[in-house]
Amino acid sequence: MLNNKKIIRFVNNPSIVGYAAVGGVYEKEGPLGGEFDYIFEDPTAGEECWEQAESMLQKTALELALKKSGNNKENIDAVFAGDLLNQCVGSTFGIMEYGIPFAGVYGACSTMALSLIMASVFVDGGFATNAAAVTSSHFCSAERQFRFPLEYAGQRPPTAQRTTCASGAVIVSNKPSKIYVRSALLGKTVDYGIADANNMGAAMAPAAADTILKYLRETNTRPLDYDKIFTGDLGQVGSELLYDICSEDNVDLRKNHLDCGLLIYDRIKQNVDAGGSGCGCSASVLCTHILNKLSVGEYKRVLFCATGALLSPTTTNQGENIPSIAHLVELLNN
Amino acid sequence: MLNNKKIIRFVNNPSIVGYAAVGGVYEKEGPLGGEFDYIFEDPTAGEECWEQAESMLQKTALELALKKSGNNKENIDAVFAGDLLNQCVGSTFGIMEYGIPFAGVYGACSTMALSLIMASVFVDGGFATNAAAVTSSHFCSAERQFRFPLEYAGQRPPTAQRTTCASGAVIVSNKPSKIYVRSALLGKTVDYGIADANNMGAAMAPAAADTILKYLRETNTRPLDYDKIFTGDLGQVGSELLYDICSEDNVDLRKNHLDCGLLIYDRIKQNVDAGGSGCGCSASVLCTHILNKLSVGEYKRVLFCATGALLSPTTTNQGENIPSIAHLVELLNN
Repeated sequence: MLNNKKIIRFVNNPSIVGYAAVGGVYEKEGPLGGEFDYIFEDPTAGEECWEQAESMLQKTALELALKKSGNNKENIDAVFAGDLLNQCVGSTFGIMEYGIPFAGVYGACSTMALSLIMASVFVDGGFATNAAAVTSSHFCSAERQFRFPLEYAGQRPPTAQRTTCASGAVIVSNKPSKIYVRSALLGKTVDYGIADANNMGAAMAPAAADTILKYLRETNTRPLDYDKIFTGDLGQVGSELLYDICSEDNVDLRKNHLDCGLLIYDRIKQNVDAGGSGCGCSASVLCTHILNKLSVGEYKRVLFCATGALLSPTTTNQGENIPSIAHLVELLNN
Repeated sequence: MLNNKKIIRFVNNPSIVGYAAVGGVYEKEGPLGGEFDYIFEDPTAGEECWEQAESMLQKTALELALKKSGNNKENIDAVFAGDLLNQCVGSTFGIMEYGIPFAGVYGACSTMALSLIMASVFVDGGFATNAAAVTSSHFCSAERQFRFPLEYAGQRPPTAQRTTCASGAVIVSNKPSKIYVRSALLGKTVDYGIADANNMGAAMAPAAADTILKYLRETNTRPLDYDKIFTGDLGQVGSELLYDICSEDNVDLRKNHLDCGLLIYDRIKQNVDAGGSGCGCSASVLCTHILNKLSVGEYKRVLFCATGALLSPTTTNQGENIPSIAHLVELLNN
């Protein structure tokens, strides 16, 4: 149910009955490597090109999440999926053969939170018994599309983030389980004038701050009411900016904030500049670290606020700023 | 509420309290030209490039729909929008300055039905009091992105469709009005092996047939139970194929089917080959012809089944088929 402050409050405890994350070798070598459900050692995932590989990530993540939830595809009433590729083809080709009613969503790197909100709304409102939320990103398909051919070996500034090669899938159900989604907030698009596509953490930090501050204000809660507040994926630069913006509102996030872009890689050893990014970054951190710790009760209540930079190569070339958005989900261990 | 056949049945009569369509000169010269709320005589809509022009279409359509509904932007709890441009930037930049919580959706040319389903779900389930559904397409931005530079003056085969320069916006509300959304069906992605990006009508016809036949079967209704069944946008080639596929199931759509791609232009006089296409095609036909006739009671019950070809230039170049999808909404005059 919605109050006029636009916080979405779920009343029927839409629960997370299964989830899975798949990744590549870079993700395997990161701090969360051991928690992935499957690692593709080959960057093409056995396919003919990186775009097909990205679809294979989604296909596999959904397959494993279905299996872990004890469902088969026929039990799923709707799947919400999107990705960074032009026209969201990673999702189209990844999800197609399941034959599940499919709603494409787009929130750039915030897509996991957006698709999870949609799945929760459908289940909570009785429009679906079970719904899936899926997203992905792939370093190679993203570089080719957004930046330069890999063979060009373009240099990256220290503010840049590495696009994660990963996918996450979550099954939301009206059947009870340990973890459920209690509330959510759809973000609004904000533009603080950042136009540097190599500094997306800076572009996204104001969106994260906007959503988190609004959520805290309207729920009358403080950061320490949550075990952790996750953003995804601001990286090092964006996280520092988030602290600065929130401190102007006298909100101190430093004590219990973690960023998915900083959790997924060892930033120094793995040479990933400001951290990880891509739809698959927050999705795979959600489906490893966050949901695993919620499952065992190590976390009881967390906020998952995924951030997206809503640019395209065309708008960047046309000199536009980078508008950003952050969608938030409150997750509880029952 | 959902039955296990996945038809979404709305129980609280989410109603359409306002809608608007804007278009360009080609659309003005078409049979529905007089029903558009605003015509941009200049293809750049006073902006610096076609992409910005497309955003201006969305911005204006939403502004007019809000005005006609008697709402201002502060009353709108969520806006669902998407378009054909890479990373859906037409919507991002079109909707941004409204400051409304924003959920990006992607369904290619089916986006109007998808966003309308999302808005109806949010309102019916009590997650929003008022929600907006918006989409757009622009001939020039689409040609540049999907085909060739306009200056190249590429030749088009007779199966090709012209991307409509238009936007449609609908305001869905929990307050009663003459028109409401009674049920809906999210489509699944189908692939019948069509790989010709100049024949999207053929690619999309099986998706339209899949969704319409499933809807009729599961609601136990026949085509003549509806005043009209609209598809958007199959064009001439796709419409004929739709009749053929449906006739194999002994369903005759010829008597009361209309296609948005055939309604928006005078196909012969305007030299648009197989008809119109683009997210803005079915969106603007919905927000002129369909909703106008529903408003005055000339239609009492229609199906609006928008179709989308889920290709990208990359997948086309990689030799992939064109998967397609069709989402359906049942609209009633109360």
